[in-house]
Amino acid sequence: MPARGDHDARRADVSAAVWRVLAARGFGGLTLRAVAAEMGVSTGLLTHYFPNKRALVRHAVDVAERHTDARDRHAAAGEGRPALRAALLDVLPLTDEATVMSRVWVSYWDGALADEEFTADQRRRYDRWRARLRAHVDAALREAPGGPGADPDDLVATCAAFAHGLVVQALFDPAAFPAHRQVALLDRFLAGLIPA
Amino acid sequence: MPARGDHDARRADVSAAVWRVLAARGFGGLTLRAVAAEMGVSTGLLTHYFPNKRALVRHAVDVAERHTDARDRHAAAGEGRPALRAALLDVLPLTDEATVMSRVWVSYWDGALADEEFTADQRRRYDRWRARLRAHVDAALREAPGGPGADPDDLVATCAAFAHGLVVQALFDPAAFPAHRQVALLDRFLAGLIPA
Repeated sequence: MPARGDHDARRADVSAAVWRVLAARGFGGLTLRAVAAEMGVSTGLLTHYFPNKRALVRHAVDVAERHTDARDRHAAAGEGRPALRAALLDVLPLTDEATVMSRVWVSYWDGALADEEFTADQRRRYDRWRARLRAHVDAALREAPGGPGADPDDLVATCAAFAHGLVVQALFDPAAFPAHRQVALLDRFLAGLIPA
Repeated sequence: MPARGDHDARRADVSAAVWRVLAARGFGGLTLRAVAAEMGVSTGLLTHYFPNKRALVRHAVDVAERHTDARDRHAAAGEGRPALRAALLDVLPLTDEATVMSRVWVSYWDGALADEEFTADQRRRYDRWRARLRAHVDAALREAPGGPGADPDDLVATCAAFAHGLVVQALFDPAAFPAHRQVALLDRFLAGLIPA
């Protein structure tokens, strides 16, 4: 039996290899074989960590969430609209790091939709994201001239829709969606959504 | 050698089986083995049609496009805004048929992003879609009070973003996004985007 420190170090190696596979090939390219090749070990050794594909995918989602939580974030200047803007900028592929993150999550949607447990997980992930956006939308509506008019949950769903749909277009056509255009599109979208 | 008619009939069988696999499992579940099982034939027989996975995916994209072109469409009442609204309604998962279509295309994004040829194909598919939306946006802007203000290509990209991002949320959470809510979200979005 390896010592505890060795075990933890090996787990960290596995997680790092899983992330490199996700970043390069997305969830569709995530296999025990690919992770083993990335680590230079046998597939058999990996089955010690992941008895099956589901276990590997589950771990990969955790790894992707850790990377997402640890990413560079846009500074939220204040509350309400500026905070909402910063939160939406955080999901757009504006940098190489953010592009990898976006690409990994978009690649997850296919497999997640094909599996009830993963669909439910992703639904909860959307719920949590929309709840965070909701706090900013509520604050923005309090500051809006004329007061709150629209339903805040509808505004949140519309913001989330715009951001994720822009992510997909930008991933497929980075030349047509450079960072400055994505930011300009977001600013115009927000201006139309909630009067400043 | 089978007669020409047999060959065409078999090709139609293959296409139908490919569609059933796509509809049930998405592109991530599309394999020669799955299509063969769906047809009750050997995988070996299918390699006659598809020498490799790329050939299968290429054919599946054609099949998906034929189904998309043949789907029930929302009647475009007039030009401009109503036509834009109808075109966007067409991509939302408002019916069972439309949900299957949406699910198939979202499932394609992962594999398409992992492959240069398929990325370029999907980029051109987005270009063609945005060009169709652009004609409606141009007409809507001509009718808008105060005349055209926003850049039409930006409005088109924003419409496409909103629609695709709403598709993804609705696929993961159909209970939270019933058809009537999707339509209401679209109508409010359009009202904020282009003054009527």
